[in-house]
Amino acid sequence: MSCVASAGAQQHADGGPRVIVAGATGFTGALAAHLLWRHPDFELVAVTGRSELGRRLADVYPRYRVPLTIEPLELERLHGIDAAVVAYPHAAAAPTVGALRDLGARVVDLSADFRLGSLPTYERWYGEHPRPELLGDAVYGLTELHRERIADAAIVANPGCYPTASLLALAPLARAGLIADVVIDAKQGISGAGRVFDETTHLSIAGENIVPYKVAAHRHTPEIEEQLAGLDPAHPDLRVQFQAHLVPLDEGEMASCYVTTTRPVAAEELRAMYADAYAREPFVEVVDTPPGVLEVRETNYCRVFAAADEHTGKVVAFGAIDNLWKGTSSQAVQNLNLMFALPETRGLL
Amino acid sequence: MSCVASAGAQQHADGGPRVIVAGATGFTGALAAHLLWRHPDFELVAVTGRSELGRRLADVYPRYRVPLTIEPLELERLHGIDAAVVAYPHAAAAPTVGALRDLGARVVDLSADFRLGSLPTYERWYGEHPRPELLGDAVYGLTELHRERIADAAIVANPGCYPTASLLALAPLARAGLIADVVIDAKQGISGAGRVFDETTHLSIAGENIVPYKVAAHRHTPEIEEQLAGLDPAHPDLRVQFQAHLVPLDEGEMASCYVTTTRPVAAEELRAMYADAYAREPFVEVVDTPPGVLEVRETNYCRVFAAADEHTGKVVAFGAIDNLWKGTSSQAVQNLNLMFALPETRGLL
Amino acid sequence: MSCVASAGAQQHADGGPRVIVAGATGFTGALAAHLLWRHPDFELVAVTGRSELGRRLADVYPRYRVPLTIEPLELERLHGIDAAVVAYPHAAAAPTVGALRDLGARVVDLSADFRLGSLPTYERWYGEHPRPELLGDAVYGLTELHRERIADAAIVANPGCYPTASLLALAPLARAGLIADVVIDAKQGISGAGRVFDETTHLSIAGENIVPYKVAAHRHTPEIEEQLAGLDPAHPDLRVQFQAHLVPLDEGEMASCYVTTTRPVAAEELRAMYADAYAREPFVEVVDTPPGVLEVRETNYCRVFAAADEHTGKVVAFGAIDNLWKGTSSQAVQNLNLMFALPETRGLL
Amino acid sequence: MSCVASAGAQQHADGGPRVIVAGATGFTGALAAHLLWRHPDFELVAVTGRSELGRRLADVYPRYRVPLTIEPLELERLHGIDAAVVAYPHAAAAPTVGALRDLGARVVDLSADFRLGSLPTYERWYGEHPRPELLGDAVYGLTELHRERIADAAIVANPGCYPTASLLALAPLARAGLIADVVIDAKQGISGAGRVFDETTHLSIAGENIVPYKVAAHRHTPEIEEQLAGLDPAHPDLRVQFQAHLVPLDEGEMASCYVTTTRPVAAEELRAMYADAYAREPFVEVVDTPPGVLEVRETNYCRVFAAADEHTGKVVAFGAIDNLWKGTSSQAVQNLNLMFALPETRGLL
Repeated sequence: MSCVASAGAQQHADGGPRVIVAGATGFTGALAAHLLWRHPDFELVAVTGRSELGRRLADVYPRYRVPLTIEPLELERLHGIDAAVVAYPHAAAAPTVGALRDLGARVVDLSADFRLGSLPTYERWYGEHPRPELLGDAVYGLTELHRERIADAAIVANPGCYPTASLLALAPLARAGLIADVVIDAKQGISGAGRVFDETTHLSIAGENIVPYKVAAHRHTPEIEEQLAGLDPAHPDLRVQFQAHLVPLDEGEMASCYVTTTRPVAAEELRAMYADAYAREPFVEVVDTPPGVLEVRETNYCRVFAAADEHTGKVVAFGAIDNLWKGTSSQAVQNLNLMFALPETRGLL
Repeated sequence: MSCVASAGAQQHADGGPRVIVAGATGFTGALAAHLLWRHPDFELVAVTGRSELGRRLADVYPRYRVPLTIEPLELERLHGIDAAVVAYPHAAAAPTVGALRDLGARVVDLSADFRLGSLPTYERWYGEHPRPELLGDAVYGLTELHRERIADAAIVANPGCYPTASLLALAPLARAGLIADVVIDAKQGISGAGRVFDETTHLSIAGENIVPYKVAAHRHTPEIEEQLAGLDPAHPDLRVQFQAHLVPLDEGEMASCYVTTTRPVAAEELRAMYADAYAREPFVEVVDTPPGVLEVRETNYCRVFAAADEHTGKVVAFGAIDNLWKGTSSQAVQNLNLMFALPETRGLL
Repeated sequence: MSCVASAGAQQHADGGPRVIVAGATGFTGALAAHLLWRHPDFELVAVTGRSELGRRLADVYPRYRVPLTIEPLELERLHGIDAAVVAYPHAAAAPTVGALRDLGARVVDLSADFRLGSLPTYERWYGEHPRPELLGDAVYGLTELHRERIADAAIVANPGCYPTASLLALAPLARAGLIADVVIDAKQGISGAGRVFDETTHLSIAGENIVPYKVAAHRHTPEIEEQLAGLDPAHPDLRVQFQAHLVPLDEGEMASCYVTTTRPVAAEELRAMYADAYAREPFVEVVDTPPGVLEVRETNYCRVFAAADEHTGKVVAFGAIDNLWKGTSSQAVQNLNLMFALPETRGLL
Repeated sequence: MSCVASAGAQQHADGGPRVIVAGATGFTGALAAHLLWRHPDFELVAVTGRSELGRRLADVYPRYRVPLTIEPLELERLHGIDAAVVAYPHAAAAPTVGALRDLGARVVDLSADFRLGSLPTYERWYGEHPRPELLGDAVYGLTELHRERIADAAIVANPGCYPTASLLALAPLARAGLIADVVIDAKQGISGAGRVFDETTHLSIAGENIVPYKVAAHRHTPEIEEQLAGLDPAHPDLRVQFQAHLVPLDEGEMASCYVTTTRPVAAEELRAMYADAYAREPFVEVVDTPPGVLEVRETNYCRVFAAADEHTGKVVAFGAIDNLWKGTSSQAVQNLNLMFALPETRGLL
């Protein structure tokens, strides 16, 4: 695709913080670039990649009208940038995050490299950490849980999409010390598999399918457990049963959470607990009927719904997000807004 | 649609058991008619309905080449039939099942009216039962659990699709007395909503969506609980946490079951338990990687997979079926095969 | 859905032109309301409907966070409004358009009632016209063809989605007098059927389907023919072969146009013709590879591509739009921007 | 997938013609193997491939319960086979077809290598032909057009899916000498792209998309033209305007054909012409409302509908097939049935 007519028709800011996206050829990096390109206050100055070099991002992703050319990451050309979004695979991200920090840039890292506070936990799931000395500089980037620390952070470890939906659904219960046991059954559209071309993503195989994956072994589990423990220090050893499924849509993710509570919880108490928890959150909508993911598609919203099951005594809580948006790239922009003292909703409504 | 060229091109049996489908205008009734029309041993002699009267079923469902005309159910014209599939809504089914039985027909009922052995449980979920005196004549029609009794039954209460997938996934654990607690998270394609035209089924609303429904209140719960109690008499009061979701495909259903076990279960024990349980079942396939529902689409197969989660100690078990086929209509044919002493797989491979 | 937390979180303008959407419960009316609610310069003051009265639009359409309550259209309460979008069915629209005009409002009408300049042509396809005396006040609202007249119009007859895609694909050829004969084969997502609940829109029927409809009898034909005649007065009697198909996606429309030309056209001439035609259009993107409709989903863009077929001598031209956006509701906003002297792209990028 | 329980549960024939599928790892080869494995009269003795060697076909394609192991094609091990289906890419097929013929096997070739009778035409579109001396032994395998010659053929060149749908829609008109000009606009599900993993088939890109491809340059054009010329010798130089599009479903294909006729054709004449043409065809259904491809999914049927457009004078004709079934693999079985004097519908109803 080459737009003869519209090149340059998009708005972008001059004079605002200068930002790059490193790893812009994957789904989440490309979306981050799209959101920053059309953002009224950031100036997207470069998009880098290890493939598709020399092509315009708008040609690789015709949906996103970002006319910048994909270039290799050359640090010496990036002096003076204020911020970076790093969209690299796990383990590959940490060295680049470190190098960009040495340049003085503040970094939102979309990988798992800085999400876990515990180095032993990281090593158990991912192997050796490339830059363990940076762990202390990183803040976990689930905006609603760590807003103040994110504002000042050098490195923001943007959460995984599954932890985002799960933790927003569970946080009020965790803060109240109510979670004795939890099963999280998550369903996600195929964009969650990323720009990967195999049987997982082929429409003829994925299109009329429902597939569980990574059974009994999902790397997002420790991230969720660590954050829940932070919210509820009285239950530091809670083991989360987490299971992911791919379902045939593009963008969208539902975390269905089944909580055995530490004490009975009445419907009215539950309602008030969730309403209070998110009363001032611009992007968390507590709803009173079960939400569908279509309602949050291509937005930074998370819709949350919780109900008490009288039959079993359990609490069922749902978190619905767009996995690429609030689950990843628009939450990165939400965090960048905070880091640069912009209104949190800027460029996201 | 009116086939100028091919009317009558389909095969059907003369001389075999004569069967009707009552309520053939819904998705499950129409599929049952399709399967019986092409069945080598049954003779489908009538399809009835309360709407679309006078139209050929092949015109209402152009996918199914059943040239019979939809007629009202007039019992006096049905003398001499051997069997009936009744595809009516709950509560509406029981009187017709009774009337057909009075004619001497053996009945497979697709509704919930005869699934529960306990009348009080029925009344709690569905209200007054129209024909409680018939409950004792009915056998629960999950073929793999009640094969012998089905063969002799006057009335077979065909299971719900959710109980079918859930119970086949859980039966080996239940028989071994291993289920201390269970969460079932089920996902189903839109055909599960039936021939209902509303926001639930509109492609523009359902198509890129994931929607939980009947939160904390699903009528399939007692059916599952009663059957599990039958398999594991030591735990008669198990409360099942069941939650259904609609996902954007046509046919297909996945029951993901999270079991807290009464004692630790090792991977090898689990593997052997499932292999043994289904070693001689023609339609249950125990697989060693997580199945996708596409693998069973438009078949009578159920694929089952179970794994022990070392992190939590729970067992995760999956049952994948086609909700309209093994979940409903082809299981009805499987049962009819048994009831008329035909090979169980006849017309279904 | 009732947003406990976020009600009122959306921005909207006070002091700008006051606008209503009449008929906001259909797909196109609801989207127009959504776009106007979040528009920085218009103030959406009311949404009306004949169903769903008393419900918030945000509850009927959970995707669109418009908190206004749906009310009946009561003209006496609408004094002082500056503009209205009317999203009524054909024939039902004209009287309301007239009444709103009597109030002094400028109207964008989404129906076909004012699209045809010729009353006899209207009557041949739609029957008697309810307000023929208003035809002279209406301007055909394909922005790129009639920008100047739209800016001053009392009534803008917003084009059909099929004419929008077709005419933008064909206009450069028509202006050059090159169209001797044309076949238009159009494909559209299911949202084009609107908030209609029947077999056409049920995911289990529409979901894995491709269905031609209104064969040899589509009402959009005269609208296309009249506009082409306007562009190419030398061929006033061109008969357009137009055929629509529904394909299984939500939003998106492709018009594939096959043109027998009045003289041979070389590839380079064709390329220059299209580039020149749309060089200054903010919302028409001439591309040099075949576009997909995903590239314009939920945007006001139209992507256009044309090629000369050396084998047949014909020209093949494609127009890709989102049928609900540029095809209907965002084009209505584009026109409103013009009518109120706002930048044409306001609220649409 | 490894079926612990059901291996060997499928039926297959011993004693019938022994057949192999060469190239069974692609979509069409795998489906051919599935159809032949469950066929009551053929004995599928081997499946070969150049990838996935040593894996069971049932593990590569969990939908198809074919337990044979994929092996390299070693001719010396294939003595005594009676037939082969060759599912290789164009140009790669011809040498293997020749070698299998030297073994005495009768071959159905799914590639384009033997579809064109004219060597110059082949070379213009595909380059040098690997085995031109075999062209004379091959019969074009559109069953309904060449049934008698197929029965005796050494090599059957199975048609492309687009020519199958297009020619069945157009044949009655061509035989009557009525086609003066024709535009064919074809839409196909993503399975038409085959087991190819790239942007074309990724659900997140293909899933909500409509994409024209190979604009003004589709290789199926000469195949259609040559066959139409055979049906209508009076118009040997007809140039067909053919355009393909990918739409977001798995299997299904619609050819929409717009015919400028050599003389006016009345509706009743048209109806009779199509009814007569296909009155005795078991797999062509002439219908009187526009068909949807869902009606023929996973069948060998083609549904055909034609209408005269009074407005333009053109005839519009539609052919709906499943591109993998009647478009390719089940038509191959239909041809094999003929070649081995079996009832044409065997294994296909």
